[in-house]
Amino acid sequence: MASSQQSWQSIASSKQEKRWSLIPEQWRLSERYPLGSNVMNVPETCGILTATEIELTSHDAVQILSLISDGTYSCESVTVAFCKRAAIAQQLTNCLTEIYFEEAIERAKMLDAQRHTSPEEKLGPLFGLPISIKDSFNIKGSDSTIGFASYANKPSHETGKLPELLLDLGAVIHCKTNVPQTMMTFDSDNNVWGRTLNPHNTAFTAGGSSGGEGALVAMAGSAIGIGTDSGGSIRIPGHVNGVYGLKPTSDIVPYSGQAFPVHPGMPIFAPSAGPLARSMRDCRFFVQVILEAGAWSRDATCAHISWAPDDSEIQPRKLRIGFVKDDGLLTPTPPVQRSLQEAADKLEAAGHTLVPIELPQVAEILTAVRKFLTMDSLKFTRSQIEASGEPFIPSVIKMGLLQEQNHSILLDDLERLRGERFVHQQIYNDMWRENRLDVILAPVSSHTSLPHDQSKHINYTALWNYLDHPGISIPRGIVKSTDSVSGAAKYGAIDEEVYASYTGPVQYAGIPVSVQLIGLKQDDVHFVLAAELIDRRTISFYDFLPIPHVSARIRWTSCTG
Amino acid sequence: MASSQQSWQSIASSKQEKRWSLIPEQWRLSERYPLGSNVMNVPETCGILTATEIELTSHDAVQILSLISDGTYSCESVTVAFCKRAAIAQQLTNCLTEIYFEEAIERAKMLDAQRHTSPEEKLGPLFGLPISIKDSFNIKGSDSTIGFASYANKPSHETGKLPELLLDLGAVIHCKTNVPQTMMTFDSDNNVWGRTLNPHNTAFTAGGSSGGEGALVAMAGSAIGIGTDSGGSIRIPGHVNGVYGLKPTSDIVPYSGQAFPVHPGMPIFAPSAGPLARSMRDCRFFVQVILEAGAWSRDATCAHISWAPDDSEIQPRKLRIGFVKDDGLLTPTPPVQRSLQEAADKLEAAGHTLVPIELPQVAEILTAVRKFLTMDSLKFTRSQIEASGEPFIPSVIKMGLLQEQNHSILLDDLERLRGERFVHQQIYNDMWRENRLDVILAPVSSHTSLPHDQSKHINYTALWNYLDHPGISIPRGIVKSTDSVSGAAKYGAIDEEVYASYTGPVQYAGIPVSVQLIGLKQDDVHFVLAAELIDRRTISFYDFLPIPHVSARIRWTSCTG
Repeated sequence: MASSQQSWQSIASSKQEKRWSLIPEQWRLSERYPLGSNVMNVPETCGILTATEIELTSHDAVQILSLISDGTYSCESVTVAFCKRAAIAQQLTNCLTEIYFEEAIERAKMLDAQRHTSPEEKLGPLFGLPISIKDSFNIKGSDSTIGFASYANKPSHETGKLPELLLDLGAVIHCKTNVPQTMMTFDSDNNVWGRTLNPHNTAFTAGGSSGGEGALVAMAGSAIGIGTDSGGSIRIPGHVNGVYGLKPTSDIVPYSGQAFPVHPGMPIFAPSAGPLARSMRDCRFFVQVILEAGAWSRDATCAHISWAPDDSEIQPRKLRIGFVKDDGLLTPTPPVQRSLQEAADKLEAAGHTLVPIELPQVAEILTAVRKFLTMDSLKFTRSQIEASGEPFIPSVIKMGLLQEQNHSILLDDLERLRGERFVHQQIYNDMWRENRLDVILAPVSSHTSLPHDQSKHINYTALWNYLDHPGISIPRGIVKSTDSVSGAAKYGAIDEEVYASYTGPVQYAGIPVSVQLIGLKQDDVHFVLAAELIDRRTISFYDFLPIPHVSARIRWTSCTG
Repeated sequence: MASSQQSWQSIASSKQEKRWSLIPEQWRLSERYPLGSNVMNVPETCGILTATEIELTSHDAVQILSLISDGTYSCESVTVAFCKRAAIAQQLTNCLTEIYFEEAIERAKMLDAQRHTSPEEKLGPLFGLPISIKDSFNIKGSDSTIGFASYANKPSHETGKLPELLLDLGAVIHCKTNVPQTMMTFDSDNNVWGRTLNPHNTAFTAGGSSGGEGALVAMAGSAIGIGTDSGGSIRIPGHVNGVYGLKPTSDIVPYSGQAFPVHPGMPIFAPSAGPLARSMRDCRFFVQVILEAGAWSRDATCAHISWAPDDSEIQPRKLRIGFVKDDGLLTPTPPVQRSLQEAADKLEAAGHTLVPIELPQVAEILTAVRKFLTMDSLKFTRSQIEASGEPFIPSVIKMGLLQEQNHSILLDDLERLRGERFVHQQIYNDMWRENRLDVILAPVSSHTSLPHDQSKHINYTALWNYLDHPGISIPRGIVKSTDSVSGAAKYGAIDEEVYASYTGPVQYAGIPVSVQLIGLKQDDVHFVLAAELIDRRTISFYDFLPIPHVSARIRWTSCTG
């Protein structure tokens, strides 16, 4: 292989040059924006998109599908518009890895032609929808570098089960998106592609590991983005970029056919794939499409869950919502606290019942999480980095995982860990039943997006990966001018350090804040329906449903939360 | 604990004395039967049961429930009848461990009284049904020895999730049933309770590890029996005792709250709980009841599978049935071959399509199975045996598992094993899809029941545990006088040795033969419906449905296959 002779620097520069060459001249920005800029409005103001394209990309995926279906837009026009926005987002935030604009537009034309030729044929449920996917998903003939120079120039032999399914359902895949080296930090930074920036403030992190998706979807560079989440990697990017980020239960969405930063047989807890999107109904719709398509029969890792909602049960009913103010380890910072309390107040005012919940055994669980993640001392991960001689990125060092030298745990330890996990899962299951909960409302993180390379805590997200409950980050606007520095950390030195990261509404102006909803394991159908019910007109900043053609993107910039 | 001072011999004799004391005088048999007897008819001829009780216990579970529901029988009369038969079965085959006859009859009376007091209250779906469970399931206040003297006299603090659910649904649990020491052999023999005998020929094995259930259900000592299956432990006892034995996908039936012969956190492949029963519809009904009861929300190990069959899809349709003649390693012996071919011919004649299937990678998979099962060199298992100083039973030595000294595999090895297993699961999944199969028809084993301590091969069953597909053994009658010794083993020395175990229809007279149906992972709903459709009047020996009050037990003895 050529790659074994090449230096990681030369691999990186040739990958980046290739990427740059795939952005057409006429889609290139003339202006540069200094670090610390809010670049959210650039796609609308830069002159590259037509008015129609601005309008078109302002809709959520469900609306776009309906506008393709009724003939308002062609697949080609939709794909071109999103490719343009993706190209702009890339230039502003460095969110992409592999670019397939040309192939995507060709495919969109082909779909239009097919429809023209066979007008009676039923359209796939994702017909013409531009979808971006995290770099880890294999696309035949294309790299899945996941930020390792040693993975470059080794094109996949086969397309992964999820992109294969999405294509079969009519989707158009126009790009792959950036991740952190190791896929285990909240800064999507690596030596091959560089760092993804937060479009709300480019001096802040876009989160990780699906950080490229978070930035891209926030800029409407994709109708739906696919991420993966083993400790928060969908929900954190959703939270810090102000979009919805749904981590389903582990075996809902096909997961096979990815490049992994750990051995594919590593007996860790439940990793999950899921959507980042600009509306709750897009997330619900995505789950519905995957389940209705019988993904389980295609990918042996999927559970046979049916999309069989009893709408009459969900829709008119008032819900019982567990309310988690904090986890007893990290105190939410003022904007997170305020935003969570507002959501709780609104839910209560809407007639739902809030049930205060103290999460059991959080410290024990987070210790177990760390042991699971580092069970092989990240020997496999480290060897992929060392293969090219590239250095660790700063956030990998900051996370401290690579320093945990367990020298691979023994089977006894693993059995103990797994045995404890079963017990913890049953404790949470019983707690859920005893309180008759529909969902839990909790922070996504104790803090918002932080400046680059400052994030390292996975408390509020990894808990639910370990237990394998579905969770979603729901955007609730941005830091307010009234979110002053106040209160104090309640749980000791580490908490104090994290709490102090919030320096007030001047530095954090424009930074998004989200809340998290959590469901019961494999109860994803009920969960997304309940989340859609309580999100709509209640806690969310976005509201697509009742007002067609008034876009979230437009309302985002005009609303102050 | 007293048990640590007591010798295993004294533990065994006090446990057995206690068990004997729980069989009422008037239910004790006067006659003894020598080894080699067929004792299947003794319950009808011994004079302990009334004519009504003989009639009552001849029905399958679904019929009994309907006869309780319509008031034909009281819960008490049903429970007394099955307790009597269980007591008789115990004396003939040594199939029981813990006996709860007194408590069961008390509970049945209580259910009758409840119904009398609140006639309008809806009956639970298992109202009044006597169910036996494998010794491993915990019942509060009672032992789960699973054949280890060291587990004796340590009553469970909590009832397991499955018996708890069954009781909540109205069932009556009247006894627990015997297993092999280690639960890893096909001879249900141990130093605490002794050996369970095959009621068709007491010189033959009743199978294992759910061998007590197999013998008990064959003698109609229980309406439904609950077993567990990690390598064939439901299907083999079903096969060798001539009853239905359903191993669902691993996470369908609650599994938590059992005594295990390995560490509960051991990362083996998918163990499963399921029913042994006297009709296919009982097996289908059991799965339906468990799924409709929402077992998943009670036991965190369960998958959220819905009982949402599209009957119209199944019932009138002709099925595509994969036909596996052998696995390329062990040649089926003459009665197994004959029985399988007859089933295939009948299915074809009934209009179903048979698709010849060569199972991929069987040898590799069976090597992996053995590595999984012995990953800790059975250190945990061995320590439970050594704790009391009891010896290994002969079939444990014969299986050879305790001799495999891996000294606990390392994480690397486990990752490799797990990684390979994902690949194998996908290969089988793809094979299933490519051939558009509904079910697969295959042997349960290459041979029938063998004389005690001769069985050791798990080829045709463990494959499906490893892949986590559901499977069921379906009885097809007994060895025929025309099943002469003929043909030859095709696959070398081991195959020759196993093939030679069949010595002809004289020694094997009356020994049951079954076939196996296999479904797709987590497709249990479709699977049991398809199995019910093709079993009825097509391949099965039993046929309850169209002729009420003509019992399988009666037809069994009058029919020659």
